[in-house]
Amino acid sequence: MKKIEEPKPIDWDALCARPTLDNSELTGIVEAILEEVQKNGDRALQKLAEKYDGARLNDIQVCTEEISKAGSFVDSDLKKAIELAKANIEQFHSSQREDFIPVETAPGVLCWRKNKAIQKVGLYIPGGSAPLFSTVLMLGIPAKIAGCEEVIMCTPPREDGTIDPVILYTAGLVGITKIFKIGGAQAVAAMAFGTESVPRVYKIFGPGNQFVTKAKELIQQTGTAIDMPAGPSEVLVVADETCDPAFVAADLLSQAEHGADSQVILVSTSEDIIDKVNQEIDRQLDLLPRKSIAEKALQKSFSIRFDSMKKCLEFSNCYAPEHLIIASEKAENFINDVQNAGSVFVGNFSCESAGDYASGTNHTLPTNGYARNYSGVSLDSFLRKITFQQLSSEGIQNIGPAIERMAEAEQLFAHKNAVTLRLKSLTNV
Amino acid sequence: MKKIEEPKPIDWDALCARPTLDNSELTGIVEAILEEVQKNGDRALQKLAEKYDGARLNDIQVCTEEISKAGSFVDSDLKKAIELAKANIEQFHSSQREDFIPVETAPGVLCWRKNKAIQKVGLYIPGGSAPLFSTVLMLGIPAKIAGCEEVIMCTPPREDGTIDPVILYTAGLVGITKIFKIGGAQAVAAMAFGTESVPRVYKIFGPGNQFVTKAKELIQQTGTAIDMPAGPSEVLVVADETCDPAFVAADLLSQAEHGADSQVILVSTSEDIIDKVNQEIDRQLDLLPRKSIAEKALQKSFSIRFDSMKKCLEFSNCYAPEHLIIASEKAENFINDVQNAGSVFVGNFSCESAGDYASGTNHTLPTNGYARNYSGVSLDSFLRKITFQQLSSEGIQNIGPAIERMAEAEQLFAHKNAVTLRLKSLTNV
Repeated sequence: MKKIEEPKPIDWDALCARPTLDNSELTGIVEAILEEVQKNGDRALQKLAEKYDGARLNDIQVCTEEISKAGSFVDSDLKKAIELAKANIEQFHSSQREDFIPVETAPGVLCWRKNKAIQKVGLYIPGGSAPLFSTVLMLGIPAKIAGCEEVIMCTPPREDGTIDPVILYTAGLVGITKIFKIGGAQAVAAMAFGTESVPRVYKIFGPGNQFVTKAKELIQQTGTAIDMPAGPSEVLVVADETCDPAFVAADLLSQAEHGADSQVILVSTSEDIIDKVNQEIDRQLDLLPRKSIAEKALQKSFSIRFDSMKKCLEFSNCYAPEHLIIASEKAENFINDVQNAGSVFVGNFSCESAGDYASGTNHTLPTNGYARNYSGVSLDSFLRKITFQQLSSEGIQNIGPAIERMAEAEQLFAHKNAVTLRLKSLTNV
Repeated sequence: MKKIEEPKPIDWDALCARPTLDNSELTGIVEAILEEVQKNGDRALQKLAEKYDGARLNDIQVCTEEISKAGSFVDSDLKKAIELAKANIEQFHSSQREDFIPVETAPGVLCWRKNKAIQKVGLYIPGGSAPLFSTVLMLGIPAKIAGCEEVIMCTPPREDGTIDPVILYTAGLVGITKIFKIGGAQAVAAMAFGTESVPRVYKIFGPGNQFVTKAKELIQQTGTAIDMPAGPSEVLVVADETCDPAFVAADLLSQAEHGADSQVILVSTSEDIIDKVNQEIDRQLDLLPRKSIAEKALQKSFSIRFDSMKKCLEFSNCYAPEHLIIASEKAENFINDVQNAGSVFVGNFSCESAGDYASGTNHTLPTNGYARNYSGVSLDSFLRKITFQQLSSEGIQNIGPAIERMAEAEQLFAHKNAVTLRLKSLTNV
């Protein structure tokens, strides 16, 4: 990793800029896929599965038997690990339930909010070299706790037309029974527009490659909501001399192995630590099966030395990392300095993998600097908060004259009249 | 209003469809404005103010003196009305503050969330025939309660280069001091990209015409968040025989006067009520200064009769109105039937104007059926919820093996190694 010494604040923006992809061609390709699925429904999905996944599908939907049998193909120790993760994720997301107490803002004026689950949601689980069943937990569990009536899932088929049993087992465990063998932009299109087999949903969640990301961006403009905009995954580690350089190196590498476009950044007060971490990276890198991917990510990565932890955290806030690890025995002291981050890992034993899999927090987080303006997925992501108000006759008498005056000043006389008629009906009694 | 009798469910989707605008030209115009502002900054803003607002501006920013003097031009009874509204809105939005209690998901694994205000937000207040100071309250108050560090406001100048004093007075009251004389798409561009005078913000709030709406949609793709997608305002009234037809007519008209593109819908169990409401509309319409606007909106509006309140609410849920008024003495009985709505007005004295101005709820709400997947503006809209986790040595020992097993199954060996190293360091002690 490139080493940078005390960069001046004027250079921070450039250091914090994420690599931008030229995706002018991408838009055209994805638009064509969206259009085809909207027009030809299931037939288009079958055609695209053959084209992109090399799979000839008779049925787009996974049948009940496939789901119920999946468990028999999953090792029992893996099942136990998944169940432990599920319990923790369930516990943390259940704690996010809120009860709203009505507020009487003026005598006779009662205002309150009520949580309502989004009725229909769709989850996308990417394919690739390995089955990302952890994402099934991260999206499926809060959807179920929220009480979404319809939770569907799309994931690309393997060449033989099947879905990895771990994915199916995890979905079954969470209670998702409508699963479709659809990948890429076509999955997003199917969930946004609906087809003969796939029900239309109101919000789409889940990570994916650039096709999926672009498709989500485009369908957002046609009325379907999405969890958040996406970019390559990233971690920033703030480390002082009380960190363990081997741990820090492992954390940086576990981000780097995600993809060649991942970014990993080390910010530290200690040159010695930076050197030791770099040595550890070299040592650990050699042992990784995904070494070549991690190497590419490391080429774009860098370390920065600042003379104080305060400055380290200021830089981190400017970068707004998806994952922020505070690698220090005194990590707690710096919690209040965190302004912009997706999820924060406090102290030397809090590795990113913990949050990626099993501690209970959600791993669907804002990348690409979006931590400045977006939260990660939580129970809230599956809810809407509807406001209610109930005015008694006393209530309208108390605030009615103010409403009349304000409506008049905004020249909205029908607004005023709606109050005037009510007030008159009360004085006439 | 057109009368419809018991439409079959198969026809509901068509009845619930909102008019779509052909805006292919619009996109080009707005893109050009965004580009110009991004490139030429303040100079572009001055040029566009002259072009679109007919105003020659020396300073884009409103000076302190203009704000502090504004109060002297506002009637004292209007000031009192605004202060009452402010108090109620403050009370309701303050009640939305949440304290998060850390959850120990497993022994030694502590997970929690923390609210952080979005550091920089921009509010857009539309111009037009009347000063919409109520929107200053609805956006400015929660921004200030959330604790956003920088809250800026843009609103189009009048031809003489000034801003209506009621707008400035209300902004001052709420504590907004950075106000810019910029309207339309150029205001959105200035806040999204920043100029010499206008600071760049992370999230943009506020209603506007089709230029503003399109600009918000476009800048969302460049990394700036927006409050929600927008469309014309709308109300749906569900009324039974215990409603007051004059009140219902007034409520429908107060929506219709918003704009020619507003939609108002009456759903009722009683033909008699529908007829009486229509008679009242005709009578009240004649007295309105904005009669011609309201008439146009009414041309696209309709009433539906169903044989049960249950069906009325089912239709309302299918429509997903921005505002839902339940005009009935037994309105409370139907609260639990509401699935999709932006804000609900319960009972005969709860008119939409109450929520528009002064009851305390927010009037920035999802239109266009977006109530299915979006909430209205609330304190949450100005916050991010950052997750934190802290694992002790006991914590990593408890969940570490599960993480290792899951990471292995996802073929992410660096993720596994980050745990393995930590577990080893503990067994070596």
